[in-house]
Amino acid sequence: MSRAVVFVSDLGLRDEFVGVCHAVVVRVAPDAHVIDISHGIAPHDIRAGALVLAQCLRYAPEDAIGLGIIDPGVGTERLAIAIETEAGHLLVGPNNGLLSIAWRADGGVRRAVAIDAPDVVLQPVSEVFHGRDVFAPAAGHLAAGRDLATLGTPIDTDRLVEVVMGEPQVEQGKVVGEVLDVDRFGNIRLNVRLEHLRVAGLDGETVLQVTATGQAASARRIVSYSEVEIGAYGILVDAWGWMAIIRYEANACADLGVRTGDPIWLTT
Amino acid sequence: MSRAVVFVSDLGLRDEFVGVCHAVVVRVAPDAHVIDISHGIAPHDIRAGALVLAQCLRYAPEDAIGLGIIDPGVGTERLAIAIETEAGHLLVGPNNGLLSIAWRADGGVRRAVAIDAPDVVLQPVSEVFHGRDVFAPAAGHLAAGRDLATLGTPIDTDRLVEVVMGEPQVEQGKVVGEVLDVDRFGNIRLNVRLEHLRVAGLDGETVLQVTATGQAASARRIVSYSEVEIGAYGILVDAWGWMAIIRYEANACADLGVRTGDPIWLTT
Amino acid sequence: MSRAVVFVSDLGLRDEFVGVCHAVVVRVAPDAHVIDISHGIAPHDIRAGALVLAQCLRYAPEDAIGLGIIDPGVGTERLAIAIETEAGHLLVGPNNGLLSIAWRADGGVRRAVAIDAPDVVLQPVSEVFHGRDVFAPAAGHLAAGRDLATLGTPIDTDRLVEVVMGEPQVEQGKVVGEVLDVDRFGNIRLNVRLEHLRVAGLDGETVLQVTATGQAASARRIVSYSEVEIGAYGILVDAWGWMAIIRYEANACADLGVRTGDPIWLTT
Repeated sequence: MSRAVVFVSDLGLRDEFVGVCHAVVVRVAPDAHVIDISHGIAPHDIRAGALVLAQCLRYAPEDAIGLGIIDPGVGTERLAIAIETEAGHLLVGPNNGLLSIAWRADGGVRRAVAIDAPDVVLQPVSEVFHGRDVFAPAAGHLAAGRDLATLGTPIDTDRLVEVVMGEPQVEQGKVVGEVLDVDRFGNIRLNVRLEHLRVAGLDGETVLQVTATGQAASARRIVSYSEVEIGAYGILVDAWGWMAIIRYEANACADLGVRTGDPIWLTT
Repeated sequence: MSRAVVFVSDLGLRDEFVGVCHAVVVRVAPDAHVIDISHGIAPHDIRAGALVLAQCLRYAPEDAIGLGIIDPGVGTERLAIAIETEAGHLLVGPNNGLLSIAWRADGGVRRAVAIDAPDVVLQPVSEVFHGRDVFAPAAGHLAAGRDLATLGTPIDTDRLVEVVMGEPQVEQGKVVGEVLDVDRFGNIRLNVRLEHLRVAGLDGETVLQVTATGQAASARRIVSYSEVEIGAYGILVDAWGWMAIIRYEANACADLGVRTGDPIWLTT
Repeated sequence: MSRAVVFVSDLGLRDEFVGVCHAVVVRVAPDAHVIDISHGIAPHDIRAGALVLAQCLRYAPEDAIGLGIIDPGVGTERLAIAIETEAGHLLVGPNNGLLSIAWRADGGVRRAVAIDAPDVVLQPVSEVFHGRDVFAPAAGHLAAGRDLATLGTPIDTDRLVEVVMGEPQVEQGKVVGEVLDVDRFGNIRLNVRLEHLRVAGLDGETVLQVTATGQAASARRIVSYSEVEIGAYGILVDAWGWMAIIRYEANACADLGVRTGDPIWLTT
């Protein structure tokens, strides 16, 4: 039986991009399970995709292949890579940092290749869509059990590009974080963890002031959504361990008027 | 071979919520077919999700597991349940009514458990996303053939929550219904069935007046979309037996300005 | 093992339409891989769907079944068809041209049936959703290995409807094309191929003037996106061989204000 493929991209679901990658994987590995984690990553947001891929991979079958396609540099010198992590995960994607949070979570990279084997890459290779012609077939071959080393030329792991996760600024009584993402429900995920609140001495507060560039709100420290009234703000640890600002049965993002990358001040 | 899982939620497809649930199911039941019925149910609209799950389950493989995740009460006292219907379907979801239309269609509940077995629930359980940590693994174990009784503590079926479907008001010459849903094409689904028109004596009319709170229109009684001119209104029995208001190759909803839950008057 | 089903529609992913078709396919062919190419084709845009289906089918497993559901004529005299192409592909959909670009790419139709076998079609057939009751079960039966001839009544191939692809107007120094589609990234796909530029003597130009009905821009002839500065226009051959107008890390469509079907003038 083929291994599962865990797929994250910014390709969206409106067009045929994701579907044709599925087709290519399944053509190589007919019984492979392709698991669509998200294709709604904001266009070209490598860091957001890297985070989602790393976070979700540990919930997938242990031998699942990670496939990431967020690729603004397609057609340039950036390499198409397949790597094996120190924990044994196989990952496929562009060498732009998209896979790096996943391999750091696994303790680093054991070996890496540039995907260039003629019997892997589909010819002619489109210079604008390596997803279909390079990454999907590589993932398919790995899912079908082919060895990583046969996908292309070995490369030195110090050529691998990593993304940088900005850390919040923490001082006594204040944490300045950044909006990582806003989900379908308008919940605002920050690059802040409980530990940052602890260091700032804010962990014991029952209410935090949340200040965005345009608006501000008082948010109760809660554990689950429904601890606040409908429409009221809360701040809680989300399903991935990030502090998130929510409004119960309402949209926190729309009200605070924030977007990914915006700064948020948390104070008493 | 694993059983199929039929999945309905309000989680949307932009974020990683649905994908990580897939990953969890497939980790437990590697060859399970996860069928995404819809993840575009309006946030927190339990009734709409309950209806879609019940309607679609009868088209799925007979032994398919129903998985519903619309869960505004996550983290509260509401139970996470797995139930077996009198017709033999297995259903997994929150105890908020989401599964209830499906089990009523099956003649009721034969047995029910609160999902709390330590080898089912993923630890630590997020208090904001039982989809990933409670419901998806439970569905995966059922798909893999594990017995319902081993998923947790048996509960009394009279503790199970049901949703109420509002019935239209019917009198001679008038039916006052409610908008159940508006689909991608702008077609307006009402909580009205042909039988209601019959009781009101409206079934023989070739044209019905459709009155919304703001706008009104004349709609021809038709069987298929193309019986009216482009842009003209029709009223027909939809694929699930509901009366629906359509405009051929146009958007009825945008023109009438209605939303889910709005009243609609049908008269001569 | 069942054959894969490659599925293209305008049904969208918000509602239950696509999901219930999956359920029906899987009920008939439990281990069939259903590959969702795109369900975001603009409502009723048969030509766009026909193009996507034809383009993607050749990337799928060789024995994959093509399933197309864009069906404004549902419930009318238009036939529901299943056909075998001269190259051996099996295709299922309405007889409105949706399958025709795929069969032309395969050299034509070898045999065709109207899908009407009582043990294929689900009863009662909804007059507004043959996707669920006619096309999905037919695709499922073909995926499970059933012979095309058993799905219904043979029909003459000269009854089959084809779509017409408009050709650009080409003269010395000028190509007048049409917008085929705009993708998630705002890239504008034209019905123009490199050959048309060659005939117009425009292939050697390093910059082309792109004129839409309201706006105009200068676009550099490039091979990959990143050859232009952020926000600058380029024109390149896309992944399917069409000339496409792009802005690097920006939205060409929003800026030029064009929509599918609009004319575009390419000149020096």
